[in-house]
Amino acid sequence: MLNFDFHNPTHIVFGKDRLNELDSLVPESARVLITYGGGSVKKFGTLDKVIQALPGREVFRFGGIEPNPKFETLMKAVDAVKENRIDFLLAVGGGSVMDGTKFIALASAYGGEPEELLSHGFNPVPVDNALPIGTVVTLPATGSEMNSGGVISHQGGKYPVFSPLSFPRFSILDPELTYTLPVNQVANGIVDTFIHTVEQYITYPVDGRFQDRTSEGILQTLIEIGPKTIEEPEDYDARANLVWCATMALNGLIGAGVPQDWETHMIGHELTAMFGLDHGLTLALVQPAGWKVRREQKKEKLLQYGRRVWGITAGSDDEIIDAAIARTEEFFTGLGMKIRLSDHGIDETGIKDIVAALEKHGLTALSETQDVTPDVSERILKAAL
Amino acid sequence: MLNFDFHNPTHIVFGKDRLNELDSLVPESARVLITYGGGSVKKFGTLDKVIQALPGREVFRFGGIEPNPKFETLMKAVDAVKENRIDFLLAVGGGSVMDGTKFIALASAYGGEPEELLSHGFNPVPVDNALPIGTVVTLPATGSEMNSGGVISHQGGKYPVFSPLSFPRFSILDPELTYTLPVNQVANGIVDTFIHTVEQYITYPVDGRFQDRTSEGILQTLIEIGPKTIEEPEDYDARANLVWCATMALNGLIGAGVPQDWETHMIGHELTAMFGLDHGLTLALVQPAGWKVRREQKKEKLLQYGRRVWGITAGSDDEIIDAAIARTEEFFTGLGMKIRLSDHGIDETGIKDIVAALEKHGLTALSETQDVTPDVSERILKAAL
Repeated sequence: MLNFDFHNPTHIVFGKDRLNELDSLVPESARVLITYGGGSVKKFGTLDKVIQALPGREVFRFGGIEPNPKFETLMKAVDAVKENRIDFLLAVGGGSVMDGTKFIALASAYGGEPEELLSHGFNPVPVDNALPIGTVVTLPATGSEMNSGGVISHQGGKYPVFSPLSFPRFSILDPELTYTLPVNQVANGIVDTFIHTVEQYITYPVDGRFQDRTSEGILQTLIEIGPKTIEEPEDYDARANLVWCATMALNGLIGAGVPQDWETHMIGHELTAMFGLDHGLTLALVQPAGWKVRREQKKEKLLQYGRRVWGITAGSDDEIIDAAIARTEEFFTGLGMKIRLSDHGIDETGIKDIVAALEKHGLTALSETQDVTPDVSERILKAAL
Repeated sequence: MLNFDFHNPTHIVFGKDRLNELDSLVPESARVLITYGGGSVKKFGTLDKVIQALPGREVFRFGGIEPNPKFETLMKAVDAVKENRIDFLLAVGGGSVMDGTKFIALASAYGGEPEELLSHGFNPVPVDNALPIGTVVTLPATGSEMNSGGVISHQGGKYPVFSPLSFPRFSILDPELTYTLPVNQVANGIVDTFIHTVEQYITYPVDGRFQDRTSEGILQTLIEIGPKTIEEPEDYDARANLVWCATMALNGLIGAGVPQDWETHMIGHELTAMFGLDHGLTLALVQPAGWKVRREQKKEKLLQYGRRVWGITAGSDDEIIDAAIARTEEFFTGLGMKIRLSDHGIDETGIKDIVAALEKHGLTALSETQDVTPDVSERILKAAL
């Protein structure tokens, strides 16, 4: 097992009918900016319920945070923070709203040029304070409700932004608030959670048994409840299991003390930035291809994955790995995803453009072994055609 | 899944050679009281290393915190805190030292009679502040390094003491610091971790899939590495897996959103208080007997345990449950435990005394279904003879 630090101070408030607890979670004297995305939190009444649960506070709103939230949009919210002397941010939405709100919290308190905050990769940004954040989660997917990172889009690139000050003080996870999500967003959330898990699990073995088995538990749960929670969105337990797994897949727990990959996410980010594909979909496109190209480097963990997660025990090592990859692809397509680049009009020319973008963004040594050079990324993308 | 709150702010610092990081974890201007137990942390040099890692601080020591730490002992430490104007407590040891230090932190800041702190059971004690605590863990067992509770002994009883202020600010978990532990303490730690897990897992099903599988992962890990880490104490990975599982088994994670039992612990506490048996041993004595007596109430989870943890798939439901209980008993005896009350000189008269003590302490409606009355406790103890 590798050395690690684990520190996650977010207070999770999970379950039915918890929104009214906002009254005790948000400071009584707060000047609150509620941040949200499109119209769904308005349309389905969540925004009204949130505001009703905050009696006595000065409450302001900032809507229109788009999927893959943009620097320019978020800077408008920073202006609203300053103008209205906001001292608490409440994100109501999914990963994009939460990620964007983390950026607002940092940029509002940052003395330098806000664009500089995009230049620190996976290292903490150099800020000493940030506005406190709470979240009300309406889309289970990114885990942003219980971690300290976000991804911000700017001028055709996607930039990770991390700070220990970005952990939400609290996150309310009421699975019932997610019942109205469109099918494709639920499918994206399932795949996002699945890939977050395998990015931290299918690398090389370091005898992290708790971490491996917890990862396997998340994957098995997603396989069991994924199709069901799409078909029966109001089955509480299926949805609750998805919501909790989404949080657990990216809160630092399963990745503590083990190697991490993230090549699929880096390539996927470029696919989203260039072709506008949903984040979850891009992961389903890239991950199986990545395993096909790097099956030797990942052999031991792919075998463990096939045996433990899919229960494949018969056959040679190669047959087990082939079957595990095939079952994964079937799982994604069973959720309604089209998982070939060609399904989305991307050909070899598009691949060249993606590889050029990876090089431009300095993403030339990806993966747990840092040997995924641009030519390996190209082979992975070709395997996804 | 049941509604739940999860909030655990402890910073875990895990791995080899981390002790020197105390210098950045403990405030520079702190007046530190290092608390410890018997002589082993002195004998093996851990105490010296800790003090060396705290240059510039005023450092005081309080040793002699005994297993099942006593109120009277801890109140002497409270006197030392006041006398020396201590503002940071650093526990160096196992569960008893950590539990005791939590009590010192609360009692030092409490305005009322310190004995009152023993009277709140599993509810938070009514205190508004407490001294900050850090820990250096030398015995993997209780999970105290990442939770907010402790158990204090006083006048023949054992009293739980909880407060959200009791979470350690940080805990350093270096598996190498545990290499010198005596075999029986390691065995006790393995059993303690195992029983912490099943107290939160073998109850009744509520479709908490992440929680169940994470519990199963801890149990499978203990079964795999338990005997090995006793035979080869300096096998780093085996010991590291024990240390991390011990922390994860009682930090709130696997019990969030599922029913919890704890009858074995309550009966075990009386066995320790009355007969001086080690805590881990008392759990190994009581748990299998509890399953035998309450096999109908726990049927579904016992079956799941037999199938998933022990891989028992053949036979009738009853045969699977019988085999699961038998395998558990073999696991405990394989760690060197004698798991019958009669092995320890306890007979039916002793059982009557234990049951009377349970009644005296108000423990008359135990378990996840609160139907373990004193006569059920008596049947459990008789099944353990």
